[in-house]
Order: sequence, then structure tokens, then C-alpha cells
Amino acid sequence: MYSNILRHPGPTPIPKKVQLAMSQDIISHRSEEFVKLFRETTNRVKPIFGTKQEILLLPSGGTAALEAAVVNTVSPGEEVVVVSIGAFGDYFVSICEKHGFHAHVLRKPWGEACTSEDLATFLEPLSNIKAVFVTYNETSTGILNPVKELAKVVREKSDALFIVDGVSCIGGVPVKMDQWGIDILVTGSQKAMMLPPGLAFVSVSDRAWKVIEENKTSAYYLNLLSYREWAQKGMTPNTPAITLIYGLSAACDLIEAEGFDQTVARHELMKDMVRAAMKALSIGVLTSDEYASPTITAIMAPEGINLSQFLGHLKKQYHLDFAGGLGELQGKIFRFGHMGYCFPSDILQAISLIEAGLQDFNYSFEPAAGISAAQKVFLEAQKK
Amino acid sequence: MYSNILRHPGPTPIPKKVQLAMSQDIISHRSEEFVKLFRETTNRVKPIFGTKQEILLLPSGGTAALEAAVVNTVSPGEEVVVVSIGAFGDYFVSICEKHGFHAHVLRKPWGEACTSEDLATFLEPLSNIKAVFVTYNETSTGILNPVKELAKVVREKSDALFIVDGVSCIGGVPVKMDQWGIDILVTGSQKAMMLPPGLAFVSVSDRAWKVIEENKTSAYYLNLLSYREWAQKGMTPNTPAITLIYGLSAACDLIEAEGFDQTVARHELMKDMVRAAMKALSIGVLTSDEYASPTITAIMAPEGINLSQFLGHLKKQYHLDFAGGLGELQGKIFRFGHMGYCFPSDILQAISLIEAGLQDFNYSFEPAAGISAAQKVFLEAQKK
Repeated sequence: MYSNILRHPGPTPIPKKVQLAMSQDIISHRSEEFVKLFRETTNRVKPIFGTKQEILLLPSGGTAALEAAVVNTVSPGEEVVVVSIGAFGDYFVSICEKHGFHAHVLRKPWGEACTSEDLATFLEPLSNIKAVFVTYNETSTGILNPVKELAKVVREKSDALFIVDGVSCIGGVPVKMDQWGIDILVTGSQKAMMLPPGLAFVSVSDRAWKVIEENKTSAYYLNLLSYREWAQKGMTPNTPAITLIYGLSAACDLIEAEGFDQTVARHELMKDMVRAAMKALSIGVLTSDEYASPTITAIMAPEGINLSQFLGHLKKQYHLDFAGGLGELQGKIFRFGHMGYCFPSDILQAISLIEAGLQDFNYSFEPAAGISAAQKVFLEAQKK
Repeated sequence: MYSNILRHPGPTPIPKKVQLAMSQDIISHRSEEFVKLFRETTNRVKPIFGTKQEILLLPSGGTAALEAAVVNTVSPGEEVVVVSIGAFGDYFVSICEKHGFHAHVLRKPWGEACTSEDLATFLEPLSNIKAVFVTYNETSTGILNPVKELAKVVREKSDALFIVDGVSCIGGVPVKMDQWGIDILVTGSQKAMMLPPGLAFVSVSDRAWKVIEENKTSAYYLNLLSYREWAQKGMTPNTPAITLIYGLSAACDLIEAEGFDQTVARHELMKDMVRAAMKALSIGVLTSDEYASPTITAIMAPEGINLSQFLGHLKKQYHLDFAGGLGELQGKIFRFGHMGYCFPSDILQAISLIEAGLQDFNYSFEPAAGISAAQKVFLEAQKK
């Protein structure tokens, strides 16, 4: 009976207006109605990507779009740089290795960002790099890489394409694809875009299109040239995820009504509230303030508490559902997703319930310390 | 205001119960709730496939699943046979060529089936064929290939895997994957399965798994071994199309409530009604009775009528939405989809409106001849 409070870093809750939009009658993907829906909706996504380029919609998960970005630009044997600061950076490495690309991997310890100095130093001795891949928001650690600065380094130090995985943040963070010099930007539907999983977004710079036109990829479903060709007609090469595009249109309504700058500010505020609360409860967070993700916070196990038992208790007793740590961070952190259809009031709710759980586990803290700290950040933001 | 009567061969209308199921709250794809949903739902699809094998669910269109079937079993330079009797067979050829497979193409004129004799003769001089690809239901022409017989020929005449594209028919026609000897069977969500686009289904025989285990495909997102590995845990390698799996569960409710044999009989009946009506109206159909598809009928332009104008008129005036012809059949046929959430009453409605349109175009016919013929077939079926 109790509703599950889903605070994962994706999939995230769906707004009722999006659900209703998705319940509209199916239309043919070769009809004028569809062309109108496709053109209007993809145009509305452009400001969220900070681009004037076409937004290509793939009926797939984000991983497929990442693979598309890779296989359409690089050929087997060619050299690439992959920045990996966590599990999703490693994903990129796996994709590259599977396709026989020679990946130079810039690794940073989980919980740290890749700085522009890191990247500049790493690129220095390399030549003939075809592409540099970076995860904008590393979902496994809650780090937002400084993509704007990294883009600058790539442009200064190489001729490589700069390809960015924006899956777990686009829609909740600022990005200026054209202005910053991102060549391919990818995201998925089920994170800050407030949609169910199953739709991927790809946008490509003129520079990258030139490379793609020369590329001889064998990919069929993930062939970006087909998506471009059909997008010019307001359509997709195969049957698109029509319901999700209806939903996307409704998600754009919501973002436009709030104002995208405000959407970004809301994510920033939620992050600050969570971090202030954890500090007040003497619970560590994995990342420094400087590169902390506005969409997900990795929180350390509270001292003396078995994390797996604690998360199980929060879910069973309070219906509050967090994600655990991945890979080397399993059992050490939990991940609090605060993106998309999530509001400061949801943060207050979740922190109250975390405090309830901490009491059940006899964790020593001043009652309401966390919630008070979060409230304070919230109230200060109202005054601005 | 008028509701659009979508009679395309996919995407098809969505039952309200499916829409409502898809509006449930999103859950984590790594939760016990998801594992239960995934296991229960995929088990319910097995009888529709006629298999005891796992049903793998890809968050993608059917085309991606077809490509997965190809790239996971065949390697560049290897020889395959593709049976192409229309546009979707040609799709398969394109996929094979894109991947550098040597495709021997058995082509039949559009509107004809591939018989077991055709295939036996074609296979005779060939050796070392790795796989034979066949479209079960050719959506561009409305032909249901005799897949049961073709499977037998493949087994007798070669060691090749037999791979079947069931996209536009599975859920509405009989298929016994295990018994007939189909090695890989693929379908999509947006046809007879009564779901929105975005979910693909793949099932694989033990024999094909052995080949896949040896295959060195570079595919990452479409890697079937990953899907199998995760399916054994009741999950998918990446974020699945959760809402569509909720919807699939509701679609299974509907099919089980009707009884799958009855679902198949309903599709057969709808086909017979459409064909009887066209005959009574002296309007041709593209295909012979023997191989006529139970899910889509390709209807010839009524004599003396400009088809494009006629279809535009039906849509504008009567809100009845048919698909036109593809490729060489453009302007010559229209395609009447009768699959999934479509009932004999819908056929009566559509035929009535076709007759209205014919009157508007001064086509000469005995009033109500088509609808009477369809009614007769319908009433006779009630007596059985």
C-alpha cells in the first residue's frame, strides 16, 4: 500500500503529466502528425543541450547511444582517450575495447574528478588521437566532471573529437554543447529528463559529422547517418518510441514552465541540501564540494552501521529506496539520486526518513540536525 | 475531435489496460520487484513463442533485435542465405551486407511466398551456409511464409541456423519455435503484441547459443550473451524499458484471458473477413489465399481510383488511417493492418468506411456488398 519513494540515480519518478501524455493514442510514425510532434519536440530539447544541431532520437537505452557515438566516429585500430573516473567511464572503455579501438585510459580514483590539468598532461605525449570520451556526470561516484574546461583542453591539445556521456545529468545541469565545443553529446530518457527508460538522445557537431561521413562503420541500427537522413524529414529510420516522444513533449512543457535556468538551480539546491544535512549528521560524502554532482550524491556508510542492513531497513520500514555502491564502492556508499522530477520537499522528506533510520540503528546524532541544516539551505535559497 | 482509426500494420492501437499498466510507478531495475516482474512476464511470453527457452527483452526496436540475431551468429566473410519476398526481407539483406556477410539472396516477386520447394532448390548447390534468414510475415506484401516447412528444409539440407523475423505477426499467428526447429525468433512490441514501440523480444535455441558462444562479435549493446547472463538473474544488462514490461504483463493478461488459440483464430477470421469483403467489392488483393497473412492484407487500388487521393480522403473524411505501399508497390496497394488490439467489429467498421469512400469516388459496386460478405464470414465463425 505504501508508495515506494524512489531516490535512485535513475530510473527516476515520472510526472503525472508525462504519464498522461504517454497514454495518448498511438499514431503512425510516417504521418504528418508524427512529423510535427518530432520536429517541435526535438527543437525544444536543443536549449537543454545548448545546441543548434539536430537532436537525434534513438529508440534505445543510453548505452546504445554511447556505442553509436563510438562506432560512428572511430575505426578498429585507431587510438582514443577515455577518461574514466568510475563505473560508467569503464563502460566506455569496454565499448571501445569490444570494437578493437586502442584506448588510452586516463583513470582517476573513484570519487575524484578529471581536471583540465589531468587531461592536458595525459594528452601531452599522445598524438593521432581520434576522439576523447568523457563522462559528464559519473553516476557511480556523484562527480560532475568539468566538461567545459576539458573541452577547451581537447581543442587546444589535439584534433580529436570530444564526445560526452551526459546520461545521468542532462536536463538538470548546464551544458553549452556548441559554445563549449562538444562534438557529440548523448543522454538517456530515464534520468533528469523525467521519462521512462527507452529513449536516447544524440547531438552531433558539424566537425563530427564530417568524421562520421568518412567512417565505414558496420553498425546498422546505430548508424547515425540514417538517423540524420530521416531527421531531416522529421522522422526516424525505424519505428520510433512514439509514446516516449509524447512524454518528452510533456517533459519539455514542465521544464519550460519552470524555466531551464531554474531547473538547473533547483538541482544545485537539492545537492547543497543533501550535503549540508550529511555534514550536520557527521556522515561523510564521497566527493569534494568542487565537483559534486547536482543530480546524485554518494554518501558514506554512517559510522558503525552495516550499510546493507541500513538500506534494507529504510526500504522495508520507510519505503525509501536508495541505490547501493557499485564495484569497489559496494557496501561503502549509497547513492541518493536527486534529479528530474524531484524537489527540495522530497529532499526534506528523505532526510527525515534517514534520520528515523539512524535512530533505529542507535546512531548518535543531535535529533533533527540533518533536517535543520537542509531546511536552512532551502530557506536561504528562497530569499534570493 | 474525431478519433483516428489506426489500421496500419504497426504501430497498432494500445489497449487501455496496457496503458494503465504502463502508468505504474517506475521501479529500480535492480530491485526484487523488477526481478519478479521480469521472470513472471518473460515466462508468460514463452507459449506465444512456442519455446521453453528464455525470452530476452531488448530496449530497442525490432530492427535492432534482427541485427543482434545476425551479428551474434555470423562473422564477416561467412556465407548466409536470406529469403527476401519484400521490403523487410531486403532489410535483412542490408543488415548482412553492412556487416560484410556474403548473402545469397533467394528473391521472390513481391506478393509471393517462398515455398519449401523454392528453398530446397536454392540450398541445393550451396555449402558452408552459416544461417538462413526468413521473414515470417512480410509486412510490405501481406504474405505469411510457410516457416514450419522452411524450417524442415533448412534442417534437412544444411547445418545452418534458421533465424526468423517474426516482428509483424508473433502474438497473432501460431509458432512452435522449439518443435519446428527455429534457432532464433525475433519480434517487436508494436505489432500483434499490443504495446507501444520500443521493446524487442529474442529467443535462442541451444544450438544457436553454441554458435553465439564461439562468435567474436564486437557488438556491445546488442550482445546476446550479456542479455542471457543477466536474464539468468532476472534482469537486463542495462536499464530495461520498464514501462513496456509492465505493459507486456497486461498484454499477457489479455491474451491469456482470450486464450492464445482464440487470439490466433481471431486474426485468421479478420483476414478472411477483409478478403471476402474485397472480393465482393471486386477489389483485388495482392496475395493468394494460401499464404495470406492473418495480420495484414495488401489491397490493390480499386479500378479507376487514384490510390493516394483515396487514402487521403479516407483519412480526412472518415478518420480511417491505412498505410500505403512500400517500394515498387507504392501507389499500387494499400495495407490494412488487422492485428493485436483489433477485432471483427473493427473490420466491419473499416469496411463500411471503405464503402463510403468508394461511393464518394463514384466507384461502381452493389451497396453494402463488402460489408455483407464480411458479416457473413463473421456470423459463420460464431456458429463454430
